[in-house]
Amino acid sequence: MLGATELLDRALAGDRRALARAISLIERGDRALCAGLGRLRVRRRDGPGAPHVVGLTGPPGAGKSTLADAWIAETRAVGLRIAVVAVDPSSPFSGGAILGDRIRMERHTGDPGVFVRSLSARGRVGGLSAACAELIDLLDAAGFDRILVETVGVGQSELAVMEVADTVVVLLTPESGDTVQTMKAGLLEVASVFAVNKADRPGAESLVRLLAQAVALDAGVGWVPPVLRAVSSNGEGVPDLLAAASAHLAWCVAAGRPDWDARRAEGRVRQFLDLVADEARAGARRALVGELGADLRAGRLDPRAATRIWTSS
Amino acid sequence: MLGATELLDRALAGDRRALARAISLIERGDRALCAGLGRLRVRRRDGPGAPHVVGLTGPPGAGKSTLADAWIAETRAVGLRIAVVAVDPSSPFSGGAILGDRIRMERHTGDPGVFVRSLSARGRVGGLSAACAELIDLLDAAGFDRILVETVGVGQSELAVMEVADTVVVLLTPESGDTVQTMKAGLLEVASVFAVNKADRPGAESLVRLLAQAVALDAGVGWVPPVLRAVSSNGEGVPDLLAAASAHLAWCVAAGRPDWDARRAEGRVRQFLDLVADEARAGARRALVGELGADLRAGRLDPRAATRIWTSS
Repeated sequence: MLGATELLDRALAGDRRALARAISLIERGDRALCAGLGRLRVRRRDGPGAPHVVGLTGPPGAGKSTLADAWIAETRAVGLRIAVVAVDPSSPFSGGAILGDRIRMERHTGDPGVFVRSLSARGRVGGLSAACAELIDLLDAAGFDRILVETVGVGQSELAVMEVADTVVVLLTPESGDTVQTMKAGLLEVASVFAVNKADRPGAESLVRLLAQAVALDAGVGWVPPVLRAVSSNGEGVPDLLAAASAHLAWCVAAGRPDWDARRAEGRVRQFLDLVADEARAGARRALVGELGADLRAGRLDPRAATRIWTSS
Repeated sequence: MLGATELLDRALAGDRRALARAISLIERGDRALCAGLGRLRVRRRDGPGAPHVVGLTGPPGAGKSTLADAWIAETRAVGLRIAVVAVDPSSPFSGGAILGDRIRMERHTGDPGVFVRSLSARGRVGGLSAACAELIDLLDAAGFDRILVETVGVGQSELAVMEVADTVVVLLTPESGDTVQTMKAGLLEVASVFAVNKADRPGAESLVRLLAQAVALDAGVGWVPPVLRAVSSNGEGVPDLLAAASAHLAWCVAAGRPDWDARRAEGRVRQFLDLVADEARAGARRALVGELGADLRAGRLDPRAATRIWTSS
């Protein structure tokens, strides 16, 4: 069993197995390893862009993993190293997607410039975005130039994960039209780039128009998200998407990165709150083996009364 | 301003505005009101069936709200009172659905035997299933015969909500085929009844076959979820669905409700953990106004170090 420091040293030196093992420890919230992360040389602490962290989100079936695969190919074509993190909120509906992702990205397995990894909540819903931020620090220290964070699913925890990214690509399809028509401001706030995938299908043009209108209505003095078309299955539009993501990053840097700083600060606050909630949950779980747990399970105590007893003890 | 006891009395006597106000207080976790709930005569504490709580879940676009609407009509046709709770995890992708639901169910507005209400997380992700359980207690005490809990979305918090239900209907469409093919055991565990909606579309039969196989493979000595077809837009198959849900309830009662008791106990445990996490989060949020918050936002303190400082203080 390696110590945290030696494990991290090996992971940073390019040892894949050590990297994978370190990530498992991050998932579990291992204290020694997470403390070790604090001592790493993380370029990102100094500002955006090195590495460029891109979030990729959208409803199920939007083609996120096909796009991620095309993104890997484009990135490798210009000689940059890329890591892909597929964040799995462990929903049974999205369960299959991770497996699909892995199979699809298998073709990059032999390439040392590509690292693909899923990050699972394993019941730690709260800590997922914190774990993701820590994983990005590790991949940053390990020298990856691009980090693509893909969320499989559409819930709140997935959007929280997007806070770790410099640039967020929201992928939609013509079938998402109904959803978009009534979509709340949240999606506009999070998006740096909109991409309409499967743009060869009917309804694509009207969705592009709809998004362009929504973006224009929302436009302030800052960055205005472009609305692009793609057919990720044949790679069409993917270079434009990468260019738009780079343009967003360049804007962040040129604009004195106001957007970037605010998002990072918000992300740290949320991660702190999530970790505190996680710790409290773990503590309360230990209380369940005693009388409190028995009374709660049998219904002699309702959940709110049990909470009052536990938090005041 | 009414006191909690008087507000609950009025809500139970059929005052709609009092009921709506009480639910808002539940959403906020109001202590006086939630303590008042503990003193109500809740039939459900004695066992399943009065009222029958049915959970309705499935991916976006599966037609959950159209089915809920048809369910209301069928229930009213036999003279029973029904409440529908649309649980909104506040995802921007699912945001529009709630609005759509309300408009669709508008036609039941004048009917005193129908109550439709959305339940929003409002940032309290953790407390959502606890709030939902409390809302069901209130609707139970208010004398509704059927309570339909619809989750708009597909994440972990939505499935947690399903733990409050006696019977869970999982609604899928031919388009969900890919998802189902690789779906994890979680969905099989939660489902009491599978319904393939939009059964007039291509692919419906193969999805039905696929589900029937999955169910058969998973079948133990207990309840075997039937796989039904429906076209909720014209009401086709809806009576069969209601009959299957009733059959599941009858089985739970006849079987000495082993399934029901275990699910209720699990639900109470999860609600307790969620409430504890919520409380911890609220406490930590208050700490953010001080030095800790400033250091965290500026990046002088990483989230994990801040958590260590806060939880040991």
